[in-house]
Amino acid sequence: MSEAAKNDARTEPAENEPRQGAIVVSGLRPTGKVHLGNYWGAVKNWVDLQQKFRCHYFIADIHALTTAYSDSSGVREATLEAAKDILASGLDPETSVFFLQSRVPQHSELAVLFGMLTPLGWLERVPTFKEQQEQLKDRDLNTHGFLGYPVLMTADVALYLAEYVPVGKDQESHLEIAREIVRRFNGFYGDVFPEPLPLFTPSPKVPGLDGRKMSKSYDNTIALSSTPEEVKTKVMSMVTDPARARRTDPGNPENCNLFPFHVLYSPADEVAVVDQECRTAARGCVDCKKHLIKNMNAGLEPIRDRRARLDSNPSLVTDILEEGSARARDLAQETMRKVTGAMGLLAG
Amino acid sequence: MSEAAKNDARTEPAENEPRQGAIVVSGLRPTGKVHLGNYWGAVKNWVDLQQKFRCHYFIADIHALTTAYSDSSGVREATLEAAKDILASGLDPETSVFFLQSRVPQHSELAVLFGMLTPLGWLERVPTFKEQQEQLKDRDLNTHGFLGYPVLMTADVALYLAEYVPVGKDQESHLEIAREIVRRFNGFYGDVFPEPLPLFTPSPKVPGLDGRKMSKSYDNTIALSSTPEEVKTKVMSMVTDPARARRTDPGNPENCNLFPFHVLYSPADEVAVVDQECRTAARGCVDCKKHLIKNMNAGLEPIRDRRARLDSNPSLVTDILEEGSARARDLAQETMRKVTGAMGLLAG
Repeated sequence: MSEAAKNDARTEPAENEPRQGAIVVSGLRPTGKVHLGNYWGAVKNWVDLQQKFRCHYFIADIHALTTAYSDSSGVREATLEAAKDILASGLDPETSVFFLQSRVPQHSELAVLFGMLTPLGWLERVPTFKEQQEQLKDRDLNTHGFLGYPVLMTADVALYLAEYVPVGKDQESHLEIAREIVRRFNGFYGDVFPEPLPLFTPSPKVPGLDGRKMSKSYDNTIALSSTPEEVKTKVMSMVTDPARARRTDPGNPENCNLFPFHVLYSPADEVAVVDQECRTAARGCVDCKKHLIKNMNAGLEPIRDRRARLDSNPSLVTDILEEGSARARDLAQETMRKVTGAMGLLAG
Repeated sequence: MSEAAKNDARTEPAENEPRQGAIVVSGLRPTGKVHLGNYWGAVKNWVDLQQKFRCHYFIADIHALTTAYSDSSGVREATLEAAKDILASGLDPETSVFFLQSRVPQHSELAVLFGMLTPLGWLERVPTFKEQQEQLKDRDLNTHGFLGYPVLMTADVALYLAEYVPVGKDQESHLEIAREIVRRFNGFYGDVFPEPLPLFTPSPKVPGLDGRKMSKSYDNTIALSSTPEEVKTKVMSMVTDPARARRTDPGNPENCNLFPFHVLYSPADEVAVVDQECRTAARGCVDCKKHLIKNMNAGLEPIRDRRARLDSNPSLVTDILEEGSARARDLAQETMRKVTGAMGLLAG
């Protein structure tokens, strides 16, 4: 509780001031256990946004197939792990609509309709299209589904009449194309959808163990559900300021992978001490790591407890997802009635 | 009855011999009233195939949007008109599953999944992609949906585990890509889908009033639901052998637009007489037209009667489509369970 309050005090305010009760939609690709990069970059924001907005959160298992299409055997397990970690983080499935994308067929229905009016040129211009193709050279991503990723993403949020979508800076181009697609639809058929606005959420620095961005593909992560022992082992292996060769050399927290985690997990007054004692060589890196391990484990403890409760009842997560998906289907069906009505199809 | 029997005697046998009870799936784009070109090229085959196969027929209103996306206001009416004409032609909604594509969301669901594994190169190579873009220059068809037309078509037939798809020669390339997509899916995930085979159905010559192919875009059609007077007016306006300048000149049925309709609507012995008397100038074109009008009206009479019964009960067609769509959804849902199971998604 006090941990969460402290972290909140450290977040920057959103750049725009959306009204209380506005509709927010966001999805997360299931890549398995949530790590601290996912948590601070997305999941924690989801939890915090629940207080102010009408939130719709989903596990984007269909999106996972845009890149994992030739072998999707890991998607089921990754979906369950992600769902458990998200719920353990404090997502409340009563307050928010929490669901599985593949259990709401209207996502695909609306994506197919949006696809009809989306010029190929818009899709080819999305920066991540070429970038991801470069990065994932071992897979052939020159597919209709991969190119259409922004169309499905637009359907994902428009289906719930999203007014705001929490975004990181790297997703802004996707939101821009979502706004263009929605605008084009409204232009042809009348104002069915709001144009979703970006909701800039805090994205604090979360380096991986090796100093690069924390990412499963770099194998440098700390899992949100780590045991106290795992946290200890991982933190002890962290790279600190490489210029600090001896215990007596002063360090620079800005060049240390440990320090950003102190910012996230230690109280503000302790962070100031850490900074000061590092720069004056008053503390060594090993002591500094032990200090972080204690605070990080304290911060992770409530999440770990909730996760243990979820693990002890295997059907609980699937039941929650199924109930949430049923709620999502009802909302989606209402939108689809408006859509087919506006388009003049013979609806049921 | 006798009319239908006669026409059957004139159809060529299919090139392959599919087994009794095989699954057949086919869709028709709603372009409004069915004309004699649609009837002889597609609808009559649908009706005939019901005797031997487990048939699934749908009105492809989502496909209509691939080209009509910027103004779909005519789709609803066109759907109703097409449905009435198809039922009037003898499609039995008890025997066959007769439904509306947009009322079965699984078409889009499966299309999105197939899209993930369909290389863009396959789609760009489909001959009709470039051709239609050329033909419909007034519309921008460079869209994600238009490019993905064969993906949706593959989902349309695979959803019901189609073994055969009735095709004209110009649709063979679409069926080839459907077979490739299904094969790729089965390769990744196991044998879920049969590879649909072409069922070559009779496609007799049906010229338009002006001698070009009968088509709405040429405004040279005869509607299946024409009144006796409309049939008379249209047939009287038909162009006959242009080389036969005077009544006393001998004609050539091969150069006459009337003659193919005698083949379709007059008994075989009368057709032989028409051919003979034309070549010897024993009959004039006006008499020949009157002869055809009588036979064509006799042939259209049972269809006209059934259509009148449908027109007199406005909710009957929508009820039939809704019941058929519910049957289709059940079948489609069963397939989707197999699909998500094979792909390892967390299904409900």
